[in-house]
Amino acid sequence: MERLIEELRKLPGVGTKSAQRFAFHILRSPTEDANALSSAILRLREQLRLCSVCNNITDIDPCIYCSNRGRSARILCVVEEPTNINSIEKTHCFNGLYHVLHGTLSPVNGIGPEQLRLANLWPRLEESEAEELILATSPTVEGEATARYIADEAHRRYASLRISRIATGVPAGSDIEYADEVTMTRALEGRRTV
Amino acid sequence: MERLIEELRKLPGVGTKSAQRFAFHILRSPTEDANALSSAILRLREQLRLCSVCNNITDIDPCIYCSNRGRSARILCVVEEPTNINSIEKTHCFNGLYHVLHGTLSPVNGIGPEQLRLANLWPRLEESEAEELILATSPTVEGEATARYIADEAHRRYASLRISRIATGVPAGSDIEYADEVTMTRALEGRRTV
Repeated sequence: MERLIEELRKLPGVGTKSAQRFAFHILRSPTEDANALSSAILRLREQLRLCSVCNNITDIDPCIYCSNRGRSARILCVVEEPTNINSIEKTHCFNGLYHVLHGTLSPVNGIGPEQLRLANLWPRLEESEAEELILATSPTVEGEATARYIADEAHRRYASLRISRIATGVPAGSDIEYADEVTMTRALEGRRTV
Repeated sequence: MERLIEELRKLPGVGTKSAQRFAFHILRSPTEDANALSSAILRLREQLRLCSVCNNITDIDPCIYCSNRGRSARILCVVEEPTNINSIEKTHCFNGLYHVLHGTLSPVNGIGPEQLRLANLWPRLEESEAEELILATSPTVEGEATARYIADEAHRRYASLRISRIATGVPAGSDIEYADEVTMTRALEGRRTV
């Protein structure tokens, strides 16, 4: 019992109290439920892995995006985390392939280019018919630094590649009244001719 | 007393209770304070007016922006409300002139182009050396409709004018995780080559 509580406490946002509640719940629940939870945890670790092409979390390799012949290999979109793929898929306006970094550059936390999953990005750009690389990291300090690093590196290696950055600006549906200075500056600088 | 309460109740967000509290406070305060408040209200209405050039709220006509020779008349920035000028000024990245609409198109509320302060925009574009018109209305439904209307109208009248729209996208400092679908779509569509 104590070992289970100890393990449950390692989950994010779970303290001793919650861990105890979880443990007692598991204790009281039918054996099948406990077995199902236990094997689901095991199976997750066994079956899920990173796509060897794009680093997305997947149960088949290559992942559903990389193995989908209907998607264009001409555009590659670089994102920080696998969940960001969902955000972009929901827009229904991107039909290219992805590349997941699993993090952003953060010298303070000891995360340099080697800690990001960049090693398999460069051969992808070389071998494929990629014409554009969209840098869809967040417009945070780390995200911007990561985008700049990849842009420089990609430009140095493949001068003819179009490298683009997603727009920073006032969010759709929001009043410009509520936009902070940096966002407003970017919205003005990034204005588009209509 | 009742007349004052009645008048105070017309202020936004002030109900009978608050109005009574205000009235009693005025009643108890020194005569000079009451006189000062009264004359400040009068003076506001006497001295503040709309700039005859850009419709900004001002005590001098033309307003400080329109009368500033250091600002470029080549770029004109259209905003919804006078307060939006502050948002843009804070960025320190715009040195042109403004044009305040005092609202947005809203057919539901009976606000058509005639209800906006557009009449003095067209002659401004004709007479001045304006080369670009930035449409800095909010990326809300009304703000977008207003921008589209002005863009069409301006293009019809002055085909050579560059018409631009501020960028919609992920706000600076924000994780793309939190961007809604419309904002993400706009951020992708509005991506810029770096």
